[in-house]
Amino acid sequence: METLSENRCFGGTQGVYRHPSTTCRCDMTFGLFLPEEANDGPVPLLWYLSGLTCTHENAMIKAGTQQWAAEQGIAVVFPDTSPRGDDVADDPEYDLGQGAGFYVNATQDPWAPHFRMWDYVAEELPALLAERFAIDPDRQAITGHSMGGHGALTLAMNLPGRFRSVSAFAPIANPTGSDWGRKQLRAYLGEDETAWLRHDASVMMREAGFDGPVLIDQGTADQFIDLLRPDALAAAIAERRQPATMRMQKGYDHSYFFVSTFMEDHVTFHGEALWA
Amino acid sequence: METLSENRCFGGTQGVYRHPSTTCRCDMTFGLFLPEEANDGPVPLLWYLSGLTCTHENAMIKAGTQQWAAEQGIAVVFPDTSPRGDDVADDPEYDLGQGAGFYVNATQDPWAPHFRMWDYVAEELPALLAERFAIDPDRQAITGHSMGGHGALTLAMNLPGRFRSVSAFAPIANPTGSDWGRKQLRAYLGEDETAWLRHDASVMMREAGFDGPVLIDQGTADQFIDLLRPDALAAAIAERRQPATMRMQKGYDHSYFFVSTFMEDHVTFHGEALWA
Repeated sequence: METLSENRCFGGTQGVYRHPSTTCRCDMTFGLFLPEEANDGPVPLLWYLSGLTCTHENAMIKAGTQQWAAEQGIAVVFPDTSPRGDDVADDPEYDLGQGAGFYVNATQDPWAPHFRMWDYVAEELPALLAERFAIDPDRQAITGHSMGGHGALTLAMNLPGRFRSVSAFAPIANPTGSDWGRKQLRAYLGEDETAWLRHDASVMMREAGFDGPVLIDQGTADQFIDLLRPDALAAAIAERRQPATMRMQKGYDHSYFFVSTFMEDHVTFHGEALWA
Repeated sequence: METLSENRCFGGTQGVYRHPSTTCRCDMTFGLFLPEEANDGPVPLLWYLSGLTCTHENAMIKAGTQQWAAEQGIAVVFPDTSPRGDDVADDPEYDLGQGAGFYVNATQDPWAPHFRMWDYVAEELPALLAERFAIDPDRQAITGHSMGGHGALTLAMNLPGRFRSVSAFAPIANPTGSDWGRKQLRAYLGEDETAWLRHDASVMMREAGFDGPVLIDQGTADQFIDLLRPDALAAAIAERRQPATMRMQKGYDHSYFFVSTFMEDHVTFHGEALWA
């Protein structure tokens, strides 16, 4: 593993690291914020999964996460959104291929050899973090924005017991019913739609739910709201009687100006679950 | 004036605007955060001047300024750092020409026709803001980072009565004695070094000082600290008996991870002066 940068930030350290990934079969880069408390022993870990076109860097520099993580004494990891490199398949559209891994294990060509973001985020990266940093693997929580909100919700509901809390900013909430989803799930997972279902937060919410607190924020002026389908997730939460807070935030759009506005609420929410 | 974007952010609006500048004789772009209170009437204004290579955008997305400005009920303007365009002179080095205006009025060719950032920030842009937005021109404060900290300090001390408070993050504090300064002041202002003196914060501090509160933060691990020369400014503050707080922050470097860490302190400091 290679250290690309480390900057002091809110009393802790914002690092960027690169490592050869056996899961994605390419080098992968991630950001990790460690609070000051990590000098004294393992701290809880919050996952932040990013959206389409993003790398590990976007949220790390624009979301204002570190100050609240420092206040809560928790680490935050910012994984990349896909495998990358000249040897890795890609697509000219922004919403497929590199920068658009959708947090699934691809089974279809040309994606199958590298696009295994599910296993990368669920298995390889957590093991690496627990081994190399002062992280307590028994105290993890997860959040994300847009495609990353989809990843956070589906990982949390598919891996019961892994995460103590889950939240999302403007998640792709019902990909099996949206142009942000059907195209990608077909490309990565094939024509059999039953393989898609565990990667749909609204389906998973109806069928499994989440044993812990749930927080969702969605801007009412989000330019992609018809693709995100928060209505499907809201209905599933209500049908399941899932304890959850879902907030429609007046006038906010899909940008990081929206994410940063509500970041304090999300990190505090996770901090309370992680330290409970 | 053209609106390039407006995003809801911490209850207010983060806008980006472009206008033809008569001072710089080119189109200029700036960011402006207006808090919710601006809907009801004019609010105080904090200037944030950026550093070398930056545009209006860097601090707007990376410094975490808006949340504290929203809390204080003050506007923040993020000007660009130089004139720009194909017709505008430039230099292959990052520290001269476009992105490196140094907040002076150039008198030397090829810079003189467009590089008038002093007048742009001191005259044209404040008049435009007061005319077009809910800004109270009687309540202004100023801050900046690196080259922008130099601009903030020199503008504040050269325009007594204009700004109620001044602060800076890792300012270029003594440009007449540094490779970050001598090259640029010679290029823009010519060989006569007496014309440089009002653009040196340490010289101005010794000769004029500032009638109001002053706050400076400087990281001890700043990779550019020898170019910034905080020692010269610290000595000048002490010699003048200038009321000021200058903090050497252990382990912080020159990045926006440093700036964002201490942004709350700076915006709160200015808010207290602006609402006093």
